[in-house]
Amino acid sequence: MSTVFVNIAMSLDGYTSPEGMSLEHWDDPEYKGWGAKWGALMAWLMNQEYFRTNLDFGPGGETGPVNDMVRRTTERIGANIMGKRMFEQGEVSWPEDAPFHTPVYVLTHERREPWVRPGGTTFHFVNDGPESALEQAKSSAGGRDIRISGGANVIQQYLNLQLVDELEIALVPILFGGGRRLFENLTEPLSAFRIDRVLDSPAATHLRYVRE
Amino acid sequence: MSTVFVNIAMSLDGYTSPEGMSLEHWDDPEYKGWGAKWGALMAWLMNQEYFRTNLDFGPGGETGPVNDMVRRTTERIGANIMGKRMFEQGEVSWPEDAPFHTPVYVLTHERREPWVRPGGTTFHFVNDGPESALEQAKSSAGGRDIRISGGANVIQQYLNLQLVDELEIALVPILFGGGRRLFENLTEPLSAFRIDRVLDSPAATHLRYVRE
Repeated sequence: MSTVFVNIAMSLDGYTSPEGMSLEHWDDPEYKGWGAKWGALMAWLMNQEYFRTNLDFGPGGETGPVNDMVRRTTERIGANIMGKRMFEQGEVSWPEDAPFHTPVYVLTHERREPWVRPGGTTFHFVNDGPESALEQAKSSAGGRDIRISGGANVIQQYLNLQLVDELEIALVPILFGGGRRLFENLTEPLSAFRIDRVLDSPAATHLRYVRE
Repeated sequence: MSTVFVNIAMSLDGYTSPEGMSLEHWDDPEYKGWGAKWGALMAWLMNQEYFRTNLDFGPGGETGPVNDMVRRTTERIGANIMGKRMFEQGEVSWPEDAPFHTPVYVLTHERREPWVRPGGTTFHFVNDGPESALEQAKSSAGGRDIRISGGANVIQQYLNLQLVDELEIALVPILFGGGRRLFENLTEPLSAFRIDRVLDSPAATHLRYVRE
């Protein structure tokens, strides 16, 4: 059976994206310094050899336990689920060969035909809520796992539905001071998690929690 | 020279105390479940042999790297700084022999003579702000370190003054869903920290950051 997991980078003060990072200011990374903050949050990942190869970022990069973790995470995904905002930001940013190579279910009110990209990514637009998106994701995942990709508000919806089995956080030692918080708007009953694994690295602490 | 450090437990969702934990509801730990949440946040510490001995909680407890860390942390403190709310909650909770055994500087608007407790703890009430409290703490610490004990709003004041040299967080795998956030109200310029050490344990991940 597919496991439902989150794997996301978070600033030390709890944000998954900095203030000012929105479509409106997409071409102005200086706006509130969002570009530098986002870059600092993602630097650990951009430096991994597996990630660089996957995105055609050129040769080189770290090989080691973090790189192995990124590879395992990527390889276990059978389908992704994301919110409308994350999709819209990606739509203007991803290469034509979108970096998922799985079905992607986009939670949105917009009605739209599936959007097929070269390389195995097809975006499906789901209008009837997170539980339906998860069902569709599971039936297309071929037994592999479902990643709730983001953004924060989508992750919060699945946490509140008690549907997140595993929570993987790359905790990066940077303060954002504002932005979108990962943990907000949570409602009782709250899921209980235990620590499953901690992978320490100089650039980020990779925390993995499993629901009890 | 004295180092200024924070050492505090934080829930996975970023809170240092749960919603409902206030003097008003001190005798009703069932209120919003604050007692159980606080207990879960502090369980890792309550189980350490050094802490149990210090607070006369009785024999037993863990001995190991976490216990050693608690001992080192306690022994390096030459003076504590805390906010008025934390003091008032402690005033009704601590044993007569208050568990600090150092001078404690309380940030408050209340004018009050120093309050001397048996066992080496004297509370000094500081009316002229966090920088003055830190100066007084340093001059009384005998070269040992200054702990900014809390609460969250006091830690935020020192973070915003760029005066926190080391940030030690026991990240506990529990969701609170509400309460007092450690990281809030931060202002630019934000301090930059690097990961200094991660001590993994089943009950909490002990993160230590040093300002760059």
